[in-house]
Amino acid sequence: MIRGRITGSVVSTRKLINLVGSKFMEVEYLRGGVSESLIAVDLVGAGIGEEVLVVTGSSSLRALEKDAPADAVIVGIID
Amino acid sequence: MIRGRITGSVVSTRKLINLVGSKFMEVEYLRGGVSESLIAVDLVGAGIGEEVLVVTGSSSLRALEKDAPADAVIVGIID
Amino acid sequence: MIRGRITGSVVSTRKLINLVGSKFMEVEYLRGGVSESLIAVDLVGAGIGEEVLVVTGSSSLRALEKDAPADAVIVGIID
Amino acid sequence: MIRGRITGSVVSTRKLINLVGSKFMEVEYLRGGVSESLIAVDLVGAGIGEEVLVVTGSSSLRALEKDAPADAVIVGIID
Amino acid sequence: MIRGRITGSVVSTRKLINLVGSKFMEVEYLRGGVSESLIAVDLVGAGIGEEVLVVTGSSSLRALEKDAPADAVIVGIID
Repeated sequence: MIRGRITGSVVSTRKLINLVGSKFMEVEYLRGGVSESLIAVDLVGAGIGEEVLVVTGSSSLRALEKDAPADAVIVGIID
Repeated sequence: MIRGRITGSVVSTRKLINLVGSKFMEVEYLRGGVSESLIAVDLVGAGIGEEVLVVTGSSSLRALEKDAPADAVIVGIID
Repeated sequence: MIRGRITGSVVSTRKLINLVGSKFMEVEYLRGGVSESLIAVDLVGAGIGEEVLVVTGSSSLRALEKDAPADAVIVGIID
Repeated sequence: MIRGRITGSVVSTRKLINLVGSKFMEVEYLRGGVSESLIAVDLVGAGIGEEVLVVTGSSSLRALEKDAPADAVIVGIID
Repeated sequence: MIRGRITGSVVSTRKLINLVGSKFMEVEYLRGGVSESLIAVDLVGAGIGEEVLVVTGSSSLRALEKDAPADAVIVGIID
Protein backbone atom coordinates (compact mmCIF):
# COMPACT_ATOMS: atom_id res chain seq x y z
CA MET A 1 0.00 0.00 0.00
CA ILE A 2 0.97 3.61 -0.36
CA ARG A 3 1.11 6.13 2.47
CA GLY A 4 -0.04 9.50 1.20
CA ARG A 5 -1.83 12.72 2.01
CA ILE A 6 -5.10 13.95 0.55
CA THR A 7 -4.60 17.25 -1.27
CA GLY A 8 -7.95 17.74 -2.98
CA SER A 9 -11.01 16.22 -4.57
CA VAL A 10 -11.82 15.67 -8.22
CA VAL A 11 -15.25 16.24 -9.75
CA SER A 12 -16.37 14.42 -12.89
CA THR A 13 -19.98 14.91 -13.96
CA ARG A 14 -19.70 12.89 -17.16
CA LYS A 15 -18.49 9.50 -16.03
CA LEU A 16 -19.33 5.80 -16.20
CA ILE A 17 -22.62 5.05 -14.49
CA ASN A 18 -20.92 2.46 -12.28
CA LEU A 19 -18.80 5.23 -10.77
CA VAL A 20 -21.71 7.51 -9.88
CA GLY A 21 -21.55 8.17 -6.14
CA SER A 22 -17.82 7.47 -5.87
CA LYS A 23 -15.82 10.20 -4.13
CA PHE A 24 -12.52 10.82 -5.96
CA MET A 25 -9.66 12.26 -3.94
CA GLU A 26 -6.22 13.40 -5.05
CA VAL A 27 -3.48 11.81 -2.95
CA GLU A 28 0.15 12.90 -2.89
CA TYR A 29 2.92 10.54 -1.85
CA LEU A 30 6.67 10.19 -2.09
CA ARG A 31 8.38 7.72 -4.40
CA GLY A 32 12.15 7.62 -4.24
CA GLY A 33 12.14 11.13 -2.79
CA VAL A 34 10.00 12.54 -5.61
CA SER A 35 6.43 13.73 -5.04
CA GLU A 36 3.82 11.95 -7.16
CA SER A 37 0.02 11.89 -7.07
CA LEU A 38 -2.89 9.66 -7.96
CA ILE A 39 -6.68 9.76 -7.80
CA ALA A 40 -8.29 7.27 -5.40
CA VAL A 41 -11.85 6.41 -4.45
CA ASP A 42 -12.40 7.23 -0.79
CA LEU A 43 -14.01 4.42 1.20
CA VAL A 44 -13.45 5.66 4.76
CA GLY A 45 -14.66 9.26 4.82
CA ALA A 46 -11.21 10.83 4.70
CA GLY A 47 -10.80 14.58 4.32
CA ILE A 48 -8.29 16.97 2.78
CA GLY A 49 -5.02 17.06 4.72
CA GLU A 50 -5.42 13.63 6.29
CA GLU A 51 -2.71 11.00 5.94
CA VAL A 52 -4.15 7.85 4.41
CA LEU A 53 -3.43 4.27 3.36
CA VAL A 54 -4.11 3.62 -0.33
CA VAL A 55 -4.50 0.24 -2.02
CA THR A 56 -3.56 0.35 -5.71
CA GLY A 57 -4.13 -1.89 -8.69
CA SER A 58 -6.82 -4.50 -9.16
CA SER A 59 -6.71 -5.38 -5.45
CA SER A 60 -8.92 -2.30 -5.20
CA LEU A 61 -11.77 -4.21 -6.81
CA ARG A 62 -12.09 -6.37 -3.72
CA ALA A 63 -13.06 -3.30 -1.69
CA LEU A 64 -15.49 -1.82 -4.23
CA GLU A 65 -19.11 -2.42 -5.11
CA LYS A 66 -19.66 -4.98 -7.83
CA ASP A 67 -19.07 -3.38 -11.26
CA ALA A 68 -17.33 -0.18 -10.12
CA PRO A 69 -13.98 0.00 -11.95
CA ALA A 70 -11.15 1.72 -10.08
CA ASP A 71 -7.43 1.13 -9.57
CA ALA A 72 -6.89 2.93 -6.25
CA VAL A 73 -8.94 3.11 -3.05
CA ILE A 74 -8.39 4.80 0.28
CA VAL A 75 -8.80 2.03 2.87
CA GLY A 76 -7.62 3.67 6.09
CA ILE A 77 -6.70 6.91 7.84
CA ILE A 78 -3.28 6.77 9.48
CA ASP A 79 -3.28 7.72 13.20
CA MET B 1 -6.59 6.59 -11.29
CA ILE B 2 -4.57 8.95 -13.40
CA ARG B 3 -5.57 12.50 -14.25
CA GLY B 4 -4.48 13.30 -17.79
CA ARG B 5 -5.27 15.17 -20.97
CA ILE B 6 -6.17 13.68 -24.33
CA THR B 7 -3.64 14.67 -26.98
CA GLY B 8 -4.66 12.53 -29.93
CA SER B 9 -6.17 9.33 -31.21
CA VAL B 10 -4.50 6.17 -32.45
CA VAL B 11 -5.68 4.17 -35.45
CA SER B 12 -4.94 0.47 -35.80
CA THR B 13 -6.57 -1.32 -38.72
CA ARG B 14 -4.87 -4.66 -38.09
CA LYS B 15 -5.83 -5.53 -34.53
CA LEU B 16 -7.43 -8.27 -32.45
CA ILE B 17 -11.05 -8.82 -33.40
CA ASN B 18 -12.12 -8.26 -29.80
CA LEU B 19 -10.81 -4.69 -30.02
CA VAL B 20 -12.71 -3.77 -33.19
CA GLY B 21 -14.86 -0.74 -32.41
CA SER B 22 -12.68 0.42 -29.50
CA LYS B 23 -11.62 4.07 -29.70
CA PHE B 24 -7.96 4.46 -28.68
CA MET B 25 -6.88 7.84 -27.33
CA GLU B 26 -3.44 9.08 -26.37
CA VAL B 27 -3.41 10.58 -22.87
CA GLU B 28 -0.63 12.68 -21.40
CA TYR B 29 -0.13 12.97 -17.66
CA LEU B 30 2.51 14.02 -15.15
CA ARG B 31 4.45 11.55 -13.05
CA GLY B 32 6.90 13.03 -10.59
CA GLY B 33 6.99 16.20 -12.69
CA VAL B 34 7.82 14.33 -15.89
CA SER B 35 5.36 14.11 -18.78
CA GLU B 36 4.40 10.55 -19.77
CA SER B 37 1.74 9.14 -22.06
CA LEU B 38 -0.38 6.04 -22.51
CA ILE B 39 -3.05 4.76 -24.88
CA ALA B 40 -6.49 4.25 -23.33
CA VAL B 41 -9.84 3.01 -24.61
CA ASP B 42 -12.38 5.82 -24.41
CA LEU B 43 -15.65 4.83 -22.75
CA VAL B 44 -17.23 8.26 -22.21
CA GLY B 45 -17.00 10.06 -25.55
CA ALA B 46 -14.06 12.27 -24.58
CA GLY B 47 -12.38 14.50 -27.14
CA ILE B 48 -8.91 15.87 -27.79
CA GLY B 49 -7.92 18.50 -25.24
CA GLU B 50 -10.27 17.30 -22.52
CA GLU B 51 -8.99 16.45 -19.05
CA VAL B 52 -9.93 12.91 -18.14
CA LEU B 53 -9.85 10.25 -15.45
CA VAL B 54 -8.09 7.05 -16.53
CA VAL B 55 -8.29 3.65 -14.86
CA THR B 56 -5.17 1.55 -15.50
CA GLY B 57 -4.27 -2.10 -15.15
CA SER B 58 -6.61 -5.06 -15.07
CA SER B 59 -9.26 -3.03 -13.22
CA SER B 60 -10.00 -1.78 -16.75
CA LEU B 61 -11.48 -5.14 -17.63
CA ARG B 62 -14.38 -4.51 -15.31
CA ALA B 63 -15.44 -1.58 -17.50
CA LEU B 64 -15.01 -3.33 -20.85
CA GLU B 65 -17.10 -5.69 -22.94
CA LYS B 66 -16.45 -9.34 -22.28
CA ASP B 67 -13.29 -10.48 -24.13
CA ALA B 68 -11.88 -7.04 -25.00
CA PRO B 69 -8.31 -6.92 -23.63
CA ALA B 70 -7.08 -3.48 -22.54
CA ASP B 71 -5.03 -2.10 -19.65
CA ALA B 72 -6.30 1.51 -19.59
CA VAL B 73 -9.76 3.03 -20.00
CA ILE B 74 -11.07 6.59 -19.85
CA VAL B 75 -13.90 6.47 -17.30
CA GLY B 76 -14.70 10.15 -16.76
CA ILE B 77 -14.24 13.71 -17.98
CA ILE B 78 -13.02 16.06 -15.26
CA ASP B 79 -15.16 19.18 -14.79
CA MET C 1 8.98 -10.22 -5.37
CA ILE C 2 10.80 -7.43 -3.64
CA ARG C 3 13.61 -7.87 -1.12
CA GLY C 4 13.32 -5.20 1.54
CA ARG C 5 13.82 -4.35 5.21
CA ILE C 6 11.13 -3.52 7.74
CA THR C 7 11.61 -0.03 9.13
CA GLY C 8 8.43 0.51 11.11
CA SER C 9 4.76 -0.23 11.60
CA VAL C 10 1.73 1.82 10.62
CA VAL C 11 -1.35 2.23 12.80
CA SER C 12 -4.75 3.01 11.31
CA THR C 13 -7.69 2.99 13.69
CA ARG C 14 -10.25 4.14 11.13
CA LYS C 15 -10.02 1.60 8.35
CA LEU C 16 -12.12 -0.84 6.33
CA ILE C 17 -13.61 -3.54 8.51
CA ASN C 18 -12.06 -6.23 6.30
CA LEU C 19 -8.60 -4.94 7.26
CA VAL C 20 -9.19 -5.08 11.03
CA GLY C 21 -6.52 -7.32 12.53
CA SER C 22 -4.06 -6.81 9.67
CA LYS C 23 -0.56 -5.76 10.76
CA PHE C 24 0.82 -3.04 8.46
CA MET C 25 4.59 -2.73 8.20
CA GLU C 26 6.70 -0.17 6.36
CA VAL C 27 9.27 -1.83 4.12
CA GLU C 28 12.22 -0.09 2.50
CA TYR C 29 13.86 -1.45 -0.62
CA LEU C 30 16.17 -0.35 -3.41
CA ARG C 31 14.98 0.32 -6.93
CA GLY C 32 17.60 1.28 -9.44
CA GLY C 33 19.84 2.39 -6.57
CA VAL C 34 17.16 4.66 -5.07
CA SER C 35 15.53 3.90 -1.73
CA GLU C 36 11.74 3.52 -1.88
CA SER C 37 9.17 2.27 0.59
CA LEU C 38 5.77 0.64 0.70
CA ILE C 39 3.29 -0.58 3.31
CA ALA C 40 2.73 -4.34 3.39
CA VAL C 41 0.52 -6.66 5.45
CA ASP C 42 2.72 -8.97 7.51
CA LEU C 43 1.79 -12.64 7.26
CA VAL C 44 4.85 -14.26 8.84
CA GLY C 45 5.41 -12.44 12.13
CA ALA C 46 8.31 -10.34 10.91
CA GLY C 47 9.80 -7.60 13.08
CA ILE C 48 11.47 -4.24 12.59
CA GLY C 49 14.95 -4.59 11.09
CA GLU C 50 14.34 -7.96 9.50
CA GLU C 51 14.98 -8.53 5.80
CA VAL C 52 11.85 -9.82 4.11
CA LEU C 53 10.34 -11.05 0.87
CA VAL C 54 7.33 -9.00 -0.28
CA VAL C 55 4.73 -9.99 -2.86
CA THR C 56 3.15 -6.97 -4.55
CA GLY C 57 0.06 -6.38 -6.67
CA SER C 58 -3.06 -8.48 -6.82
CA SER C 59 -1.04 -11.67 -6.34
CA SER C 60 -1.23 -10.61 -2.69
CA LEU C 61 -4.91 -11.52 -2.61
CA ARG C 62 -4.05 -15.17 -2.93
CA ALA C 63 -2.29 -15.03 0.45
CA LEU C 64 -4.97 -13.04 2.28
CA GLU C 65 -8.23 -13.89 3.98
CA LYS C 66 -11.27 -13.68 1.74
CA ASP C 67 -12.37 -10.03 1.39
CA ALA C 68 -9.25 -8.33 2.77
CA PRO C 69 -8.02 -5.87 0.13
CA ALA C 70 -4.25 -5.29 0.02
CA ASP C 71 -1.61 -4.88 -2.66
CA ALA C 72 1.51 -5.99 -0.76
CA VAL C 73 2.14 -8.82 1.71
CA ILE C 74 5.23 -10.01 3.55
CA VAL C 75 5.48 -13.72 2.72
CA GLY C 76 8.92 -14.67 4.06
CA ILE C 77 11.86 -13.65 6.21
CA ILE C 78 15.18 -13.88 4.39
CA ASP C 79 17.83 -15.98 6.18
CA MET D 1 -1.66 0.45 -23.62
CA ILE D 2 1.85 1.24 -24.73
CA ARG D 3 2.80 2.48 -28.18
CA GLY D 4 6.13 0.96 -29.17
CA ARG D 5 8.25 -0.36 -32.00
CA ILE D 6 9.39 -3.94 -32.52
CA THR D 7 13.17 -4.17 -32.49
CA GLY D 8 13.77 -7.90 -32.48
CA SER D 9 12.59 -11.36 -31.52
CA VAL D 10 13.60 -13.53 -28.58
CA VAL D 11 14.15 -17.27 -28.80
CA SER D 12 13.75 -19.53 -25.78
CA THR D 13 14.01 -23.26 -26.40
CA ARG D 14 13.73 -24.26 -22.74
CA LYS D 15 10.47 -22.72 -21.60
CA LEU D 16 7.15 -23.60 -19.96
CA ILE D 17 5.13 -25.98 -22.10
CA ASN D 18 2.18 -23.57 -22.06
CA LEU D 19 4.32 -21.01 -23.89
CA VAL D 20 5.40 -23.33 -26.70
CA GLY D 21 4.33 -21.72 -29.98
CA SER D 22 4.27 -18.19 -28.58
CA LYS D 23 6.25 -15.66 -30.61
CA PHE D 24 8.21 -13.31 -28.31
CA MET D 25 9.08 -9.89 -29.67
CA GLU D 26 11.20 -7.14 -28.13
CA VAL D 27 9.38 -3.82 -28.13
CA GLU D 28 10.96 -0.44 -27.46
CA TYR D 29 8.94 2.50 -26.21
CA LEU D 30 9.41 5.87 -24.56
CA ARG D 31 8.61 6.52 -20.92
CA GLY D 32 9.12 10.04 -19.72
CA GLY D 33 11.53 10.63 -22.59
CA VAL D 34 13.64 7.57 -21.72
CA SER D 35 13.79 4.52 -23.98
CA GLU D 36 12.69 1.28 -22.31
CA SER D 37 11.92 -2.18 -23.64
CA LEU D 38 9.84 -5.22 -22.84
CA ILE D 39 9.17 -8.65 -24.32
CA ALA D 40 5.62 -9.22 -25.59
CA VAL D 41 3.79 -12.15 -27.16
CA ASP D 42 2.77 -11.23 -30.71
CA LEU D 43 -0.87 -11.96 -31.50
CA VAL D 44 -1.27 -10.06 -34.78
CA GLY D 45 1.65 -11.14 -36.99
CA ALA D 46 3.69 -7.99 -36.46
CA GLY D 47 7.22 -7.72 -37.81
CA ILE D 48 10.46 -5.99 -36.86
CA GLY D 49 10.26 -2.23 -37.36
CA GLU D 50 6.47 -2.01 -37.10
CA GLU D 51 4.81 0.33 -34.63
CA VAL D 52 2.48 -1.61 -32.37
CA LEU D 53 -0.04 -1.37 -29.56
CA VAL D 54 0.91 -3.43 -26.50
CA VAL D 55 -1.37 -4.47 -23.64
CA THR D 56 0.55 -5.02 -20.40
CA GLY D 57 -0.18 -6.71 -17.09
CA SER D 58 -2.75 -9.39 -16.38
CA SER D 59 -5.16 -7.86 -18.92
CA SER D 60 -2.96 -9.79 -21.36
CA LEU D 61 -4.43 -13.04 -20.13
CA ARG D 62 -7.77 -12.16 -21.68
CA ALA D 63 -6.15 -12.25 -25.12
CA LEU D 64 -4.18 -15.46 -24.63
CA GLU D 65 -4.95 -19.15 -24.88
CA LYS D 66 -6.07 -20.74 -21.64
CA ASP D 67 -3.04 -21.50 -19.43
CA ALA D 68 -0.44 -19.42 -21.31
CA PRO D 69 1.16 -17.06 -18.76
CA ALA D 70 2.32 -13.71 -20.13
CA ASP D 71 2.27 -10.09 -18.99
CA ALA D 72 2.46 -8.28 -22.34
CA VAL D 73 0.81 -8.94 -25.71
CA ILE D 74 0.90 -7.13 -29.03
CA VAL D 75 -2.76 -6.53 -29.91
CA GLY D 76 -2.56 -4.18 -32.89
CA ILE D 77 -0.33 -2.64 -35.55
CA ILE D 78 -0.57 1.15 -35.66
CA ASP D 79 -1.41 2.61 -39.09
CA MET E 1 7.96 -9.93 -19.96
CA ILE E 2 11.34 -8.88 -18.70
CA ARG E 3 14.66 -10.11 -20.07
CA GLY E 4 17.12 -10.46 -17.22
CA ARG E 5 20.04 -12.42 -15.83
CA ILE E 6 20.08 -14.57 -12.70
CA THR E 7 22.59 -13.25 -10.19
CA GLY E 8 21.85 -15.34 -7.12
CA SER E 9 19.35 -17.27 -5.07
CA VAL E 10 17.44 -16.23 -1.96
CA VAL E 11 16.81 -18.49 1.01
CA SER E 12 13.87 -17.97 3.33
CA THR E 13 13.30 -20.61 5.98
CA ARG E 14 10.41 -18.83 7.67
CA LYS E 15 7.87 -18.34 4.90
CA LEU E 16 4.25 -19.03 3.99
CA ILE E 17 3.53 -22.74 3.79
CA ASN E 18 2.22 -22.33 0.24
CA LEU E 19 5.69 -21.18 -0.86
CA VAL E 20 7.57 -24.15 0.61
CA GLY E 21 9.48 -25.81 -2.22
CA SER E 22 9.60 -22.67 -4.37
CA LYS E 23 13.07 -21.73 -5.60
CA PHE E 24 13.63 -17.96 -5.36
CA MET E 25 16.16 -16.42 -7.71
CA GLU E 26 17.46 -12.86 -7.91
CA VAL E 27 17.21 -11.48 -11.44
CA GLU E 28 18.90 -8.32 -12.70
CA TYR E 29 17.58 -6.41 -15.67
CA LEU E 30 17.85 -3.01 -17.30
CA ARG E 31 15.11 -0.42 -17.16
CA GLY E 32 15.73 2.79 -19.01
CA GLY E 33 19.46 2.10 -18.82
CA VAL E 34 19.42 1.60 -15.05
CA SER E 35 20.07 -1.79 -13.45
CA GLU E 36 17.23 -3.07 -11.26
CA SER E 37 16.52 -6.43 -9.65
CA LEU E 38 13.62 -8.57 -8.50
CA ILE E 39 13.09 -11.96 -6.90
CA ALA E 40 11.31 -14.53 -9.09
CA VAL E 41 10.19 -18.12 -8.59
CA ASP E 42 12.10 -20.37 -10.98
CA LEU E 43 9.90 -22.75 -12.96
CA VAL E 44 12.37 -23.96 -15.58
CA GLY E 45 15.49 -25.03 -13.70
CA ALA E 46 17.51 -21.94 -14.54
CA GLY E 47 20.92 -21.37 -12.97
CA ILE E 48 23.06 -18.42 -11.93
CA GLY E 49 24.39 -16.49 -14.92
CA GLU E 50 21.69 -17.61 -17.33
CA GLU E 51 19.63 -15.10 -19.27
CA VAL E 52 15.95 -15.64 -18.62
CA LEU E 53 12.44 -14.53 -19.48
CA VAL E 54 10.43 -13.35 -16.46
CA VAL E 55 6.67 -12.90 -16.23
CA THR E 56 5.68 -10.29 -13.62
CA GLY E 57 2.48 -9.35 -11.84
CA SER E 58 -0.55 -11.50 -11.28
CA SER E 59 -0.08 -13.21 -14.66
CA SER E 60 2.45 -15.24 -12.67
CA LEU E 61 -0.38 -16.98 -10.84
CA ARG E 62 -1.37 -18.75 -14.03
CA ALA E 63 1.97 -20.56 -14.03
CA LEU E 64 2.03 -21.47 -10.34
CA GLU E 65 0.52 -24.21 -8.24
CA LYS E 66 -2.86 -23.41 -6.79
CA ASP E 67 -2.46 -21.23 -3.67
CA ALA E 68 1.20 -20.24 -4.14
CA PRO E 69 1.33 -16.42 -4.08
CA ALA E 70 4.08 -14.82 -6.19
CA ASP E 71 4.37 -11.81 -8.49
CA ALA E 72 7.28 -12.92 -10.70
CA VAL E 73 8.16 -16.26 -12.29
CA ILE E 74 10.97 -17.39 -14.58
CA VAL E 75 9.22 -19.01 -17.55
CA GLY E 76 12.05 -19.51 -20.04
CA ILE E 77 15.80 -19.53 -20.61
CA ILE E 78 16.86 -17.33 -23.52
CA ASP E 79 19.00 -19.11 -26.14
